[in-house]
Formats: sequence, C-alpha cells, structure tokens
Amino acid sequence: MTRNEFDIIRQYFRGLADNTGGVICGIGDDAAVLAIPPGHELVVSTDTLVSGVHFPAATAAADVGHKALAVNLSDLAAMAALPQWVTLALTLPEDDPEWLAGFCGGFAVLARETGVSLVGGDTTHGPLSITITVMGVVPAGTAVKRSGARPGDQIYVTGSLGGAGLALRRLLDGRYADVRNKRDVCLERLLRPRPRIATGLALRGIASAMIDISDGLAADLGHILEDSGCGAIVQLEDIPIAPELHELTRAEFWRTALTAGDDYELCFTAPVAKRPEVERLTQQSLVPITPIGEIMGSGLSWRNKDGSESKFPVTGYRHF
Amino acid sequence: MTRNEFDIIRQYFRGLADNTGGVICGIGDDAAVLAIPPGHELVVSTDTLVSGVHFPAATAAADVGHKALAVNLSDLAAMAALPQWVTLALTLPEDDPEWLAGFCGGFAVLARETGVSLVGGDTTHGPLSITITVMGVVPAGTAVKRSGARPGDQIYVTGSLGGAGLALRRLLDGRYADVRNKRDVCLERLLRPRPRIATGLALRGIASAMIDISDGLAADLGHILEDSGCGAIVQLEDIPIAPELHELTRAEFWRTALTAGDDYELCFTAPVAKRPEVERLTQQSLVPITPIGEIMGSGLSWRNKDGSESKFPVTGYRHF
Repeated sequence: MTRNEFDIIRQYFRGLADNTGGVICGIGDDAAVLAIPPGHELVVSTDTLVSGVHFPAATAAADVGHKALAVNLSDLAAMAALPQWVTLALTLPEDDPEWLAGFCGGFAVLARETGVSLVGGDTTHGPLSITITVMGVVPAGTAVKRSGARPGDQIYVTGSLGGAGLALRRLLDGRYADVRNKRDVCLERLLRPRPRIATGLALRGIASAMIDISDGLAADLGHILEDSGCGAIVQLEDIPIAPELHELTRAEFWRTALTAGDDYELCFTAPVAKRPEVERLTQQSLVPITPIGEIMGSGLSWRNKDGSESKFPVTGYRHF
Repeated sequence: MTRNEFDIIRQYFRGLADNTGGVICGIGDDAAVLAIPPGHELVVSTDTLVSGVHFPAATAAADVGHKALAVNLSDLAAMAALPQWVTLALTLPEDDPEWLAGFCGGFAVLARETGVSLVGGDTTHGPLSITITVMGVVPAGTAVKRSGARPGDQIYVTGSLGGAGLALRRLLDGRYADVRNKRDVCLERLLRPRPRIATGLALRGIASAMIDISDGLAADLGHILEDSGCGAIVQLEDIPIAPELHELTRAEFWRTALTAGDDYELCFTAPVAKRPEVERLTQQSLVPITPIGEIMGSGLSWRNKDGSESKFPVTGYRHF
C-alpha cells in the first residue's frame, strides 16, 4: 500500500484498534494476539464482497464499508455470538484516497457501534474486493447452530423481508438516478443492513436453530431444515413483508419476498415452551419478531390463508 | 459458487475439516465455533494474494494454493504460534474445475502437513484473488513480537536469502520457458515457500523479537528495529545467501539478497545468554540458523569484511 493509503487507514482506525478488551497485540506485528475469556469459545466467519458482483460498482464507498462489515457481523449474530475483533483484507484498483476515506468511514462507524476492534489486515492493489473475517465469543456450548430445530418448534423471523430485494430491482431498472442522494427505506435496507446482534444475543438459550437471511427465506429456512433433518409448514400471510413490495405483481411479490435475500434478518426456531420468552423479547426489542410457521417431520409447505399450498422455487447462492 | 465448484472443494477438503482438535462447529454453519485450549491465546493473521500482483497469472494452480497458505502460516511461525485453523476466501473469474482442483490440491497438502483445519470460507466470482485467515494458539504470554529486541542481542536468520528473488528475476526475464515443468531450487523457493513453523515454535522462550522475511531482510529487520526502538550492526559476509546469486553483479547480488523478499525465512533476535540454546537448536534443526549481527542502541549499519560500511536502499511493501 502507498504511504497515502497507510495514513488514511491509520487516521480512520485510530482508536478502533483497542475498541474491545482482549487485544494483547494488535495491528502492526506479524499477527494479532487475542485473549478469549475463560469458559468461552471462539466464533469465526469470513465473507468476500466483489465490486460488480455483490454491490454495483457505483455504490458509495461508505456504503460498501458498512455493508462489508455488516454481512459478516450478521453471521455472528446468527450464532448468538458477541462480536469482538475483525480483520480487513482490502484490494483496491488504484490509489484513490477519496474512495478509501469513504470506505474506512463507513466501516469504522459500524465497528465502533458494535464494539469490534480492527486487529489486522492487508491492503493490496488489484480489482476492488473486500474480505472480512470477524471473530466473536460465546460462553462454551451456547452457540446456536442451524441443526437444532425439532418438530413442533415455532419458526420466527425478525424485522421484515423483501425490502433489500426490491431496492436491488429498482437499482437495476435504473429507478434510482443518483444512489448517493436519493435514499428510501428499501435502499437503506440494501446498502446499510443492520446486523441483528442484540436480538441474536438475547436468543441464547431460547432459539433451537438460527440462520441469517442473506439468500432469501426460502433458501435459508431450507438450510435449517436440511441441517436439522426436518420439514416445515409456513403460513404465507404471517410472513412480515416490507409494505413497499405491494407495487409488484403477485408472482414478483413472493419471488422478491422469499428469494431475493440481502435483508440480513434472522430466521430462528424455538420450542413451544419458550414462546413466552420469545414474546417477552418481542415486547422489549426494537426489532419485531414474528412467528411464521412450525417445524414438521419432513417436507416444506408454503400455506395460503385458505389452506391451499403455493409452490416457490428455492434458490440461493451456495456457500461452503 | 456453482454446484461443480462446491463438489470439487468438498472432495479436496474432506477430512481437512477435522484435521486438528478444537473444532466444535466447522464448515457449513453461519460461522465456525472453535475451542482455544485453557491458558492459551489466539493468534490471527490475514493475507491476500492477487493474480498478476503477488504471483504471475500463469502460475500453476497448485503452486498458488500452496503459497497462499504458506505465507499466512509464515506469519504465525514468526509469532511462535502453533497453527490450528484456516478460513479461505477464494474469488475465481469463471467456473474452471481444473484450476480449482489444482488450487485445492496444493492448499490441502500443506494444510495436512501442518495440521491446520479448514473451518470456513467463501467462494465468489470475480478477478482471481485469495484471502486467507490463519488462526493459531500460544501459551498465554509466549507470543514473540517484533518489539522485544534489546541492545546486545544477537541477530539471526534461518535458511538462506535471495533465492526467491532470483527466481522472480529469471521469471520476469523469460528465462523459465515453462514454469510448470522446469523447477530449480530458486523457483521452488519462490513458488513453494516452506513456513518455518517448527523453528518458530522452538524459539519460544529464546527469541526476544521475531519477524518473517517477506519483504527482504533490510525492510523486515527494519521493522524489528523500529518497533524495538533499537539499531543494529549487520556483518554482510555472515548473511547466508543462496549460492545461485553469484551469477549477479555485485550491486544486483546485494539488492536481490536484501530487498527482494519472498523467501519467508525467519529473522529473530536473542539475548547473548541464550546463545547456547540457539546453537543447540541449530544442531537439532533441519533448517540452518545463522548469526548475522548485533542489536545496538540506534542506527543500522551494514558492515563489509574490512570494517567499511555499505549503504543499501531499505524498501519493501508497507502493510498495516
């Protein structure tokens, strides 16, 4: 990296390097040395965002910085982990101080809000992409996996679905002339997803299985069912869908709501006995939590209000 | 990633997902859950390799897979950490099963040799680049930082320097017609660096400061001196330099030996009182360890045999 880039990164991340405890040796050595609290386990997730693939090349740098960190934090939220540390590998096409400053600003604001320390990274020249590794902790044995759903469990989602997908449609249709200046609720969902960290933490000991909805409810609930060896009945009318989607045809409405993804809400299951705790959490939380169905022995059925069944394509990017 | 890619990665990494202990939840959930042994600290490093920047685009896929992991493991070696886990973020230009199989093969062989488990990752489509995060452990307080050198300490390097740099010169000069079939010692150093993990571990409690030589001895010893607030006298004739460099002019000989980097040897310092332990280690180790100079209060002096001083440019990529 150039001297210029080094100075910009230093300026934006000053103070972020010791945001949380546990940093014995941070940025500047061959590797970071970190202390895990006694009785806790480490939770780690890595995600890459490539310009033109995961975000339009014209996306504002600050939005890219926010989203790159947010999607990684969302994975920790889905494990009920407390985020602690992050490494940032940034590949930049050229020495562009303005872009870099914007990116660092968006990243740093969210890092500060969520209490994560930047503990390492690498800046290289090449086609724009960002790979982030986030690390968090959970008390031993309390991480919520995808595999814990059992027949009879209720299925819940946080927030509302489809807003980010609608914004992406509008963006690709050229309906946001200038993304930097015209923000609406859906575009905000797409560009500035809020990882549901507090809700994830509150669901420790309550949720039996959990996933973040990055690829759409159909695909991500499908992962829970596959890993848990179960099926489900979902009540379509109960799914909380962003009201803006009513501008779409019925087929496009459901396609966007269930398969577009990018909302980064949580989908989780909980035993019926935990329902009072989920309801208490719903009342205490700023983020709505909505029951949408029930885990069954096998099969996946999307039910209309009249009891009839709808068929939806289950698609989504396959990660490993 | 495509179904095809997923199957290739699964095939090569089967068995690698539980190579070491401590993996409570590995690949396939939102995040990995890992157990750090009691009384130990976590050591983390991230590095990105971009095609055409960090390796020629024509490099064999297996060599890329090996090197991407090796340079990260080298950072852990330089902290005296035991490698445990790795995440792999791979951005591929297209669905190229042959390339991916080669890459996974090179990566997997080194992972198996060094006992690291693949615990997560992300595969995306875009211009070829690889970001790896390696995680290791050290007994609390035993990581060797860059900042511990003190006046009077001896300076040592492992192995020999300059071989990788010479191979890169030859490669850029078109002197390897077909890299895939014509391997010599120097090219092997460039394409298949061996992270000095065992030597790094053996230096716990002996080395006062340590770094891996990725950017050349001049730059990397410079980092130790800067972080330790010290200077040094280095005896040029004592530096172990790959014999192949004698084909170069004197100026190019020293430039390649001291500033070309990419050898991934270790440079470390140790108090004079530890000299017997270093010598014992030298006899027990397959990797030579050579004393090259002494830490001083300030300044950096490269001494010729006759006691005169040489000036060398101190260059190197700046990481953060």
